[in-house]
Amino acid sequence: MKRCHNFNAGPAVLPVPVLERIREEMLCLPGVGMSVLEISHRSKTFETILSETENRLRRLLNVPETHHILFLQGGASLQFSMVPLNFLTRDGVADYIVTGSWSEKAVEEARKIGRVNIAATTKEENYARIPNQSELRLDPQAAYVHFTSNNTIFGTQWPTEPEVGTTPLVCDASSDFLSRPLDVSKYALLYAGAQKNAGPAGVTIVIVREDWLERIPGGLPTMLDYRTHVKHRSLYNTPPVFAIYVVGLVLEYLEAQGGLAAVAAASAEKAGKLYAAIDSGSFYRGTAERNSRSLMNVCFRLPNPDLEAVFLREAAANGFEGLPGHRSVGGIRASLYNALPMESVLALIDFMRDFARRHA
Amino acid sequence: MKRCHNFNAGPAVLPVPVLERIREEMLCLPGVGMSVLEISHRSKTFETILSETENRLRRLLNVPETHHILFLQGGASLQFSMVPLNFLTRDGVADYIVTGSWSEKAVEEARKIGRVNIAATTKEENYARIPNQSELRLDPQAAYVHFTSNNTIFGTQWPTEPEVGTTPLVCDASSDFLSRPLDVSKYALLYAGAQKNAGPAGVTIVIVREDWLERIPGGLPTMLDYRTHVKHRSLYNTPPVFAIYVVGLVLEYLEAQGGLAAVAAASAEKAGKLYAAIDSGSFYRGTAERNSRSLMNVCFRLPNPDLEAVFLREAAANGFEGLPGHRSVGGIRASLYNALPMESVLALIDFMRDFARRHA
Ligand SMILES: Cc1ncc(COP(=O)(O)O)c(C=O)c1O
Ligand SMILES: Cc1ncc(COP(=O)(O)O)c(C=O)c1O
Ligand SMILES: [Mg+2]
Ligand SMILES: [Mg+2]
Ligand SMILES: [Mg+2]
Ligand SMILES: [Mg+2]
Repeated sequence: MKRCHNFNAGPAVLPVPVLERIREEMLCLPGVGMSVLEISHRSKTFETILSETENRLRRLLNVPETHHILFLQGGASLQFSMVPLNFLTRDGVADYIVTGSWSEKAVEEARKIGRVNIAATTKEENYARIPNQSELRLDPQAAYVHFTSNNTIFGTQWPTEPEVGTTPLVCDASSDFLSRPLDVSKYALLYAGAQKNAGPAGVTIVIVREDWLERIPGGLPTMLDYRTHVKHRSLYNTPPVFAIYVVGLVLEYLEAQGGLAAVAAASAEKAGKLYAAIDSGSFYRGTAERNSRSLMNVCFRLPNPDLEAVFLREAAANGFEGLPGHRSVGGIRASLYNALPMESVLALIDFMRDFARRHA
Repeated sequence: MKRCHNFNAGPAVLPVPVLERIREEMLCLPGVGMSVLEISHRSKTFETILSETENRLRRLLNVPETHHILFLQGGASLQFSMVPLNFLTRDGVADYIVTGSWSEKAVEEARKIGRVNIAATTKEENYARIPNQSELRLDPQAAYVHFTSNNTIFGTQWPTEPEVGTTPLVCDASSDFLSRPLDVSKYALLYAGAQKNAGPAGVTIVIVREDWLERIPGGLPTMLDYRTHVKHRSLYNTPPVFAIYVVGLVLEYLEAQGGLAAVAAASAEKAGKLYAAIDSGSFYRGTAERNSRSLMNVCFRLPNPDLEAVFLREAAANGFEGLPGHRSVGGIRASLYNALPMESVLALIDFMRDFARRHA
């Protein structure tokens, strides 16, 4: 069967060579008489997979020795709670910069634990942009500043992280993780569900600075205490073995592509072409402000919702999948994660041109 | 490459037809132009996978309409905390029947939330048996009674669930889930990591009685509140799509085998033959008392640890994997989950006979 053009927002397209490798090894990992689905998480085989995956990520993202890399379960949504459980006290305060629905959800969970200071929000502007540095009202007492580096639903992205002085910086990087180089040393903690650029659903990557762990209070449920997973190197209990294995293969693929600088250049090219097509006439209209535009999730509208429905129907019939905007906002969203080939972007642009000609 | 005899305690052996099906569909699910690793969890395709998996499980285990079926992340270890967070109050008490290391860990997490009454423990006897009904000292005020149906490390198994009157019964069924029919109506909540009989690591199955949910207090982290997952039918956030898909394939395979009665008969036959081999002379010695013996994890010793080391070395050289006992107890453990073929058991028995003849 022919593979479609997969514009899913996550879980999302994966590199074909990774899928082929999984297929090839499904009944027997090389040199091991069993499937990766059947190996013990305490085996040498998995030890090697786990440490190679960690090492590759450390190399690719240039993660300093001051930071631990963890592979957890529960998605970014569980991190919304783990971060404040570990680092916010009942009478403490944390800064949250609110740039979309995911930031809002993070705030909701933090409020169950302690106080939240909304350092900035662009809700009034329908989250069409990232706030400027000068708009941030940071609390000098804050236990940390939390922000969402890429807003999957609204299609906005921080060009670079906010400046927060000496307050620990925490980032939900779910939807742009591994799409560009990052200065990890600026972060106290960074988390990302793997299911966009890094792998399949089922594993969440957390990068946390060693010295920040000292703040964690005693008495937390063992599975929710970051120290548990640091101490046991993500092997306190049975980890999501297969998802970690696939992340390892994706990282290997990204290294072969030339690393994150090459990946970022490819992203810029793909997004650049698509935004140019949107901007080239008045039929399509991008929803994000120009200098807040996401390179990962390109959100746009057509002249009216009826035309959008026709567009989505015709697109699906032509092999373009995953283009409906998030159910909370509507419109069109084309997600351009690393594994999406340029060919798919060009095909979409062709389709858009043709559709506009027929319906303008 | 030749597949080994896989006696892993979990993650563990899976049915070959399931692995072949995964391999076949890895690049494109039938009728869908993408891999199961690339589909959206909000797609029709996944909706169908999820509901078919739930329906199959409901049929196989005869789960009544009074009970919800959930597919969660975090392993059984996160359930150790979620159960008391949802159902135990700070000044309340819960009964725990302690039959091994996993029960101990469950107790440890419950003690962080409220009071625990150890209703019985066989620790003094090195967990070699399941307590009798008459030994249980149940607290009539208990919010629930928690027990571990099969003790993966010590190789003991409850022949049937304890009688607990009207107190809600909670079970960690991780290592014998789907190995035999169960009267689910007796349980308020039952949980199991999938990675023994039900699928790969990365998904945890929870079955919970609707009317018990009313007891859950407000203010819990959203991801730790069972009501979240009931309300959103395991789709509050991105679920472990692939692990659920594989569970669905395993359930389909189990149905084709004739369901849980057939599976239980096969287990009894496999374990019967292995225990008979152990009992047939004095060289091998089972560690569990006879009427507490597990059909899933057969634990035994040799005359001395040196011989055990030789046994394990030779076994590995002959294609028997996963036979070392848990690192906390040593000895030998042969796990006989559903997907382990009788052929592997017979081969092991042959090897054991030969080894005993050479070393007795
Ligand atoms: C930026 C961001 N944060 C958090 C989430 C929630 O992630 P999960 O479904 O892994 O809990 C998403 C999901 O798409 C996301 O895009
Ligand atoms: C009976 C039992 N309970 C709990 C666990 C822990 O499960 P997990 O690793 O999924 O947290 C295990 C793991 O083997 C087990 O056998
Ligand atoms: Mg958003
Ligand atoms: Mg335009
Ligand atoms: Mg045990
Ligand atoms: Mg004997």
